[in-house]
Amino acid sequence: MKIYGDIISGNCYKVALTCALLEIEHEWVSMDLLKGDARTDEFKAKNPNAKTPTLELDSGQTLWESNAIINFLAHDTELMPTDAWQIGQVQQWQFFEQYSHEPFIAVARFINKYLGLPEDRKAEYESKQVGGHKALQVMEQQLQQTPHLIGEQLSTADISLYAYTHVAHEGGFDLSDYPAINAWMDRIQQHEKYIGMEK
Amino acid sequence: MKIYGDIISGNCYKVALTCALLEIEHEWVSMDLLKGDARTDEFKAKNPNAKTPTLELDSGQTLWESNAIINFLAHDTELMPTDAWQIGQVQQWQFFEQYSHEPFIAVARFINKYLGLPEDRKAEYESKQVGGHKALQVMEQQLQQTPHLIGEQLSTADISLYAYTHVAHEGGFDLSDYPAINAWMDRIQQHEKYIGMEK
Repeated sequence: MKIYGDIISGNCYKVALTCALLEIEHEWVSMDLLKGDARTDEFKAKNPNAKTPTLELDSGQTLWESNAIINFLAHDTELMPTDAWQIGQVQQWQFFEQYSHEPFIAVARFINKYLGLPEDRKAEYESKQVGGHKALQVMEQQLQQTPHLIGEQLSTADISLYAYTHVAHEGGFDLSDYPAINAWMDRIQQHEKYIGMEK
Repeated sequence: MKIYGDIISGNCYKVALTCALLEIEHEWVSMDLLKGDARTDEFKAKNPNAKTPTLELDSGQTLWESNAIINFLAHDTELMPTDAWQIGQVQQWQFFEQYSHEPFIAVARFINKYLGLPEDRKAEYESKQVGGHKALQVMEQQLQQTPHLIGEQLSTADISLYAYTHVAHEGGFDLSDYPAINAWMDRIQQHEKYIGMEK
């Protein structure tokens, strides 16, 4: 199994972290997104949407979208509940992540950390702050009530939300007003098989 | 079971269509999003992200995010495969929908159809066309190869992508260059339990 990814991307880090927690053997194929590695015809044959991460089985079959990949890897493991309602909760938080969290926090981080906050993207950067804090407040409210997003159990929902939340400060988000989020991030980091974003 | 939704929203229509295809009894609670029905404190107690659709069980437990809801409703039915790889493919297309399709096609439709394409949002509307067509091309490529997005089987992935694709013209997208998408939409509309967007 190959995983095509760029570890500076939180979406790719989700897959690396899931593999670490579950001790899944794989070949990591490093992609440099800033150099356009995902936009070659060869790569588009694996993922027509030209994005990483992308998983490739030994058979050549591919799967893309970070949250779909980690749910596939976590199938029948302790990171995925078996009850339909609980599975629904996992997916609820993951779709929330892709629509209401990542487009604000990941994009603000990208503009700030990788583009150096250029003048012509400052307005866009500022506009991301409101939506990002709204998403953080929704998470904080849940994590005030339960240790993990779906309740007691650590699941792929936590991995999905952790990926960009733990580097949100790189997008200008001050997390000091979110005590439950900080306690939750500490719990994840204390997992004995935890790995950070730099492999 | 109650479903809070506004049928003019494709995200809510996904749930209505899934309930129709699976003959799931439910109470539809009509929300007027343009009037701010989702932003009341009473509603935020059900969904802190203040969005529809939201599903509420008789027990009072709630589930939000359209794709999570329809996957929950389709659990153990003919609209959801049981194989882990196939489930991964369903989710791949749904995360693609929420990140690479809906933010372009649904937003262009909203600006055009519901806001009347005001001058101060024309640049944003135009900017959505490129991303929308990119998403349609990714779908077209898959549907040239298989009758449904994950292969032979009609699944919730098709419902997720169908919702905004079949009204994409209301966002200014000309679908005449996408023959496989048109054939796929016809197949869905011919389902004996199909309902359209106007309930």
